[in-house]
Amino acid sequence: MRIVIALGGNALLQRGQPMTAENQRANIRVAAERIAAITPGNEIVIAHGNGPQVGLLALQSAAYHDLADGVAAYPLDVLGAQTDAMIGYVIEQELGNLLPAEQSLATILTMIEVDRNDPAFDHPTKPIGPVYDRETAERLQAANGWAIAADGDMFRRVVASPKPMKIFEIRSIRMLVEQGVIVICAGGGGVPTLYGDHENQDDRGELRGVEAVIDKDLASALLAEQLDADLLVIATDVDGVYTDWGTPHQTRLGRVTPDELAGLELPAGSMGPKVQAACDFTRHTGNEAVIGALTDITDIVDGTAGTRVRELHPSQDLLVRRRMEASYRPPT
Amino acid sequence: MRIVIALGGNALLQRGQPMTAENQRANIRVAAERIAAITPGNEIVIAHGNGPQVGLLALQSAAYHDLADGVAAYPLDVLGAQTDAMIGYVIEQELGNLLPAEQSLATILTMIEVDRNDPAFDHPTKPIGPVYDRETAERLQAANGWAIAADGDMFRRVVASPKPMKIFEIRSIRMLVEQGVIVICAGGGGVPTLYGDHENQDDRGELRGVEAVIDKDLASALLAEQLDADLLVIATDVDGVYTDWGTPHQTRLGRVTPDELAGLELPAGSMGPKVQAACDFTRHTGNEAVIGALTDITDIVDGTAGTRVRELHPSQDLLVRRRMEASYRPPT
Repeated sequence: MRIVIALGGNALLQRGQPMTAENQRANIRVAAERIAAITPGNEIVIAHGNGPQVGLLALQSAAYHDLADGVAAYPLDVLGAQTDAMIGYVIEQELGNLLPAEQSLATILTMIEVDRNDPAFDHPTKPIGPVYDRETAERLQAANGWAIAADGDMFRRVVASPKPMKIFEIRSIRMLVEQGVIVICAGGGGVPTLYGDHENQDDRGELRGVEAVIDKDLASALLAEQLDADLLVIATDVDGVYTDWGTPHQTRLGRVTPDELAGLELPAGSMGPKVQAACDFTRHTGNEAVIGALTDITDIVDGTAGTRVRELHPSQDLLVRRRMEASYRPPT
Repeated sequence: MRIVIALGGNALLQRGQPMTAENQRANIRVAAERIAAITPGNEIVIAHGNGPQVGLLALQSAAYHDLADGVAAYPLDVLGAQTDAMIGYVIEQELGNLLPAEQSLATILTMIEVDRNDPAFDHPTKPIGPVYDRETAERLQAANGWAIAADGDMFRRVVASPKPMKIFEIRSIRMLVEQGVIVICAGGGGVPTLYGDHENQDDRGELRGVEAVIDKDLASALLAEQLDADLLVIATDVDGVYTDWGTPHQTRLGRVTPDELAGLELPAGSMGPKVQAACDFTRHTGNEAVIGALTDITDIVDGTAGTRVRELHPSQDLLVRRRMEASYRPPT
């Protein structure tokens, strides 16, 4: 099977953990052990979040800028690119150490086009980096031109989270996957780029980065779709999607259709993009998307764990039917 | 032709320029214009330096670590990985903007194995980052455990510069190049890695990064050799190798053999690794290496500029003879 794994930010750095190189490596090692278990016989593509990491780079840049001779922080797109390699390097190394030496791995910088008219640019919502008290948040807001938003009784920087439209490196990623290379890509949802300047509607010019963050689950769904993946695994730290979460009646969903899942009232928070990503992928391809715990990934791949999202009536869906026909092999 | 271009640090950031994102992008744009001119009909692989960039990341990390709640700087291998994407992203974007939309580009994080017994580890010589006065240098030395060395009447951080032995991602890079993708890789000479710990001779364990910098010209020569490149271009800001540099008798070398070039007395400095890289490549492959100015790259590819290094007597060299025979085409 060709499997795209979207690795949640918690797999890289647990909430509240100091963002040290040692913590990141230790967490990635645990994730790599899980992923190594499912590599035999499968084609693996790994996408991952970068929220805490891009936040750290922004803080480091700001601290240096505050010094007498320090240069200004690099824009968010460049910092995001940096995290692709900062995280991909450690994943490639730790996963490579667990696999036979002949297994090739590659980390690919990924640029993703977003729509200059995406309404997300008017409503920055994506929190990045650590939490601050109000005073610190307002100081950073003033100093760096950040948008900030409340997170509980604390504050975080927020940026726009536009939808991913096109993965520029998809042809290279596909070639490598087809040749058996484990590819690490679309880090942090990919670097958001657009032609011209989204604030200047007349500018239809060159491809440029934009200060935003693409949701990594939505980017992973697009990646999985464009790679014709058999399975999209959205790996997080809970074992599925729950109804009535946090009540005595909370129930984990097993098999659901995208319509059923999209129709549920789920608590706000990070589960929203995961649900949307799973629905997008299965609606567009007819293949299965699973939301579940990274610790369960072997069972997820075996079909026995996680909340499994798939159309039940593929005959109603032309695209699905076409794909099923194309992949049909008569019994031998 | 398959051409590997080793892009000198000066092409990314001129000595003395502030290390701003704007300066870096403007310089890369100029380099991209030069490279775009030679892409039609050729397969292009771009390697590049990262000295000023990895120095900047080290400074940013240190500035943040000095704050009350700041985490420690990430090790040099992780910072080096970050620069692969920090620079590769901008090269990919700027070069992509100059080429037809159907031209694929990819930036590949590159890990290179070095020898744990490389004597370079006992003698750190590679300067990275900006220059400091003595007081600042000694403070940073004490605070971060850096080695420092004089640079004129100022000081810089120095790290070991071991020889590149093996490029882990070479299979992926080759696949992409063979499919016409312009690949940006081996940034900063690649991230130096070795099995186990070079200070513990009994440790034959897992692949790990090491705090060192591989010379980017030597890494480019290995890359060019392993990709069977037809031409290695070591692009810098002078138009070739000179004898009697800085005297009224200074003479630019045109065509030279590796033995002639290696036998010359050249001034110490950054030309040494370029000469060694050119000699390594042409000795191992029989193909041509050119040291010259990035501004002359069209003429370099046409065979009319730069100091061109190649064996004159291939019949004395079995490897060269075999390659020439293999590539021989009878006149039609």
